[in-house]
Amino acid sequence: MTIRKALSKALDPSARKEKGLSKTNTCIIILICLSIGIGIAETEVALTEGLENIYDAAHLILFALFAAEYAARLYSAPENTIHKTPISYALTLSSLLDLIVLLSFLLPLIGLETSLLRMIRAARLVRLAKMGSYSLALQMIYKAIKDRRYELTVSVIIALGLMLLSSTALYLAERSSQPEAFGSIPRAMWWSVATLTTVGYGDVVPMTILGRIAAALTALTGIGIIALPTGILAGAFSEGMRGFRSKSAETETQN
Amino acid sequence: MTIRKALSKALDPSARKEKGLSKTNTCIIILICLSIGIGIAETEVALTEGLENIYDAAHLILFALFAAEYAARLYSAPENTIHKTPISYALTLSSLLDLIVLLSFLLPLIGLETSLLRMIRAARLVRLAKMGSYSLALQMIYKAIKDRRYELTVSVIIALGLMLLSSTALYLAERSSQPEAFGSIPRAMWWSVATLTTVGYGDVVPMTILGRIAAALTALTGIGIIALPTGILAGAFSEGMRGFRSKSAETETQN
Amino acid sequence: MTIRKALSKALDPSARKEKGLSKTNTCIIILICLSIGIGIAETEVALTEGLENIYDAAHLILFALFAAEYAARLYSAPENTIHKTPISYALTLSSLLDLIVLLSFLLPLIGLETSLLRMIRAARLVRLAKMGSYSLALQMIYKAIKDRRYELTVSVIIALGLMLLSSTALYLAERSSQPEAFGSIPRAMWWSVATLTTVGYGDVVPMTILGRIAAALTALTGIGIIALPTGILAGAFSEGMRGFRSKSAETETQN
Amino acid sequence: MTIRKALSKALDPSARKEKGLSKTNTCIIILICLSIGIGIAETEVALTEGLENIYDAAHLILFALFAAEYAARLYSAPENTIHKTPISYALTLSSLLDLIVLLSFLLPLIGLETSLLRMIRAARLVRLAKMGSYSLALQMIYKAIKDRRYELTVSVIIALGLMLLSSTALYLAERSSQPEAFGSIPRAMWWSVATLTTVGYGDVVPMTILGRIAAALTALTGIGIIALPTGILAGAFSEGMRGFRSKSAETETQN
Repeated sequence: MTIRKALSKALDPSARKEKGLSKTNTCIIILICLSIGIGIAETEVALTEGLENIYDAAHLILFALFAAEYAARLYSAPENTIHKTPISYALTLSSLLDLIVLLSFLLPLIGLETSLLRMIRAARLVRLAKMGSYSLALQMIYKAIKDRRYELTVSVIIALGLMLLSSTALYLAERSSQPEAFGSIPRAMWWSVATLTTVGYGDVVPMTILGRIAAALTALTGIGIIALPTGILAGAFSEGMRGFRSKSAETETQN
Repeated sequence: MTIRKALSKALDPSARKEKGLSKTNTCIIILICLSIGIGIAETEVALTEGLENIYDAAHLILFALFAAEYAARLYSAPENTIHKTPISYALTLSSLLDLIVLLSFLLPLIGLETSLLRMIRAARLVRLAKMGSYSLALQMIYKAIKDRRYELTVSVIIALGLMLLSSTALYLAERSSQPEAFGSIPRAMWWSVATLTTVGYGDVVPMTILGRIAAALTALTGIGIIALPTGILAGAFSEGMRGFRSKSAETETQN
Repeated sequence: MTIRKALSKALDPSARKEKGLSKTNTCIIILICLSIGIGIAETEVALTEGLENIYDAAHLILFALFAAEYAARLYSAPENTIHKTPISYALTLSSLLDLIVLLSFLLPLIGLETSLLRMIRAARLVRLAKMGSYSLALQMIYKAIKDRRYELTVSVIIALGLMLLSSTALYLAERSSQPEAFGSIPRAMWWSVATLTTVGYGDVVPMTILGRIAAALTALTGIGIIALPTGILAGAFSEGMRGFRSKSAETETQN
Repeated sequence: MTIRKALSKALDPSARKEKGLSKTNTCIIILICLSIGIGIAETEVALTEGLENIYDAAHLILFALFAAEYAARLYSAPENTIHKTPISYALTLSSLLDLIVLLSFLLPLIGLETSLLRMIRAARLVRLAKMGSYSLALQMIYKAIKDRRYELTVSVIIALGLMLLSSTALYLAERSSQPEAFGSIPRAMWWSVATLTTVGYGDVVPMTILGRIAAALTALTGIGIIALPTGILAGAFSEGMRGFRSKSAETETQN
């Protein structure tokens, strides 16, 4: 087996016959998670103070590893894809994204503020989601959600209608006593979302008797209605996963 | 095909043979949503300051479009309804509602505060809900809810009983230490609704040990009970939508 | 038909052949709800100020009506119960409760503070729950809950264990920085209940980094666990109501 | 029957033929719960002030009882276990744990602060969970959870992704106006957990318009997604308990 073939097998899940992720890809996923973790930690002063050198070193090491992975991917691309040369593969969307992510590692070294840009590394995870069996799982979930588009549409319309109704009621009841919080319908909507989702921060609360009665009615009747799309999505997820399980069981039996 | 017939087909869903909404009605729904959106935005000073002319123009344009729609509906009514003349159609409830909504557009131009009146435009959406296939969906949901009226009644009675019980308990425990918030059972009910729906604003919270024990017991036992009607409604909704789907699948097969 | 028999039919659901509540019992339920409503309203000064005479009159009228009902029940008791004389019926627990409720109406007239005592009127509702078809529904729900006692026990033990674990964790993390709120495990339990039920008042919130990490883990893992008994109860309720529906459908067919 | 055999039957559930817990083990569970209760109460000054002697006495009595149980367990071990001598049983993990718990009772008597150590008594409950039929129930639940590991993994990944996304969005929107609460992604995560679990303490709330829009979208879309693992766990629990019930019914029939 040539090096190119071995690299292709290690990097491209569709080139493998075995189930699950290759060891190389498992390592890459861990490295991506690590780089996301570093990106998160860097935003917190308490976690970076006096450790700038360590972060810089980590960035350099991660850059080197991802650069090596990028090069290996380009080199092995002709083996298992429709792309005849590394260059034509390098111009695909997913490969260009890899390049941008790769370059984003260099920016902090030249002093640019890149906390935003660094978050695009998470985008690579989405691409990796295509790998292995999770790709099929996501397809099945997507299909189950699509099957329920009517339910979702109807329940979202009802939920939005209720949100509009309750915001208007609270706006009318509270606008004179709390103009800052309920002085307009868009402002009252902040209260409405917090209440109907039962988050209930408590930063904005009705004070008048009329407002409280409207809020109590909203809370009592509305929670069930806001929970409808949630329940539909959960059902679609379960169904999709069931479909995925029965399909992967099938595939295993055939092999 | 006469103009009258074409208008009737474009405006009245029952005059169409094809499935779904006509392009004209889709446009009208978008316009109604737009006019509701403008009505919401207008209540917020930050969104209207210095833009009064734009809002006035939008009102005029929307008025013109809805007036045209109203005229077209009257003109085409004899084609596909039981009303022989436009005038007899104009006197129906839904047509009079359209007229009132239409006239509400003129009021801001003569300087009247009409934020309330403008909200009645949303009422038109209810009428439009009759259009297309959503009408059948709503009927099926209504039927499913009606089938479960016993469950709903029993669970609502249990929930109200629990609410009364917990308000009374908190009123007794907290009335002397927090007379403003728990000085009467109706006041304690505001706390009770916020707690049992798990909204938990935190504006009113028990402070005494007895009150906290009662509140903890209420929260732990009560949440499941308050969730019962919610679960029943969600079940009725799913069942109704399933019924709707199997029925529309049937209709399509017959065609 | 004698008056005694007619009264018995009107007051005792088991003496009726027709389905549902008799008109008399419907009126009595409305009166009980009214008297509970008055009892609730009376605790609020804003609803009673200057209306003392109206409340006194309402109490007198309700007293007269309930006294008449009590007398009629005693008089008609021998018709349809195992009690041979009104007096032996008067000594039953439910009849004595009626008498106490009845006498509670007289106390405010002689100036005694009886807000507590007045709440026992609600107890009559429980007795009325035995009436009509709701009695069967409650039996079926009770049976369904009993069938799931193992599930309930296991899930309650797990939930209590989690509550203890999270209170201890927060007590250890926050006791030095917030001794008032987290200075002991019983105090931390107030936070624990508010968090695990997702009520989240926000009166007691972890401040330290360790406390917040423990709280986040508690919230993320715990909510599903606290929801288990709730879900089991909801399932038992649905099953009980289904059983009730199929049983009452059966009964109707037999008639 | 020798004393050793009787002790073995009373202490070791696997030595009994009858269903359920022996009376001795029931007493031991009650004693453990009591000792946990005392451990909880002791952390609260209001519950211990002036009662130090009573707590000391309770500790001594509990120590004596648990010491007796420990001795009895060692003595009867050869009867029903693979351990030929009490000493080889005393060196097993579960027996050593018992010893540590036992010794923890003595520490407060010599004035050591042991609130932490005392909590390990709860660990004994875990061991007792192996007793009786609950052991089988826990096994079945564990199996049901294991069967759904794919669903759990996928839903946890989606939930974590959403949490990361919403924290990043709020960090970007609010970091300049509220550096204390949203100044870094780890800080914003505290808000994110509180919102997505619908706990909503309200100690950290977005203030800017952009932040509120992002928060509203997070709350509306995210709640359903965070509820997915919860729903899967609840389903696994029900399935496990169903399996347990059908299995124990089977066993009873065979006997």
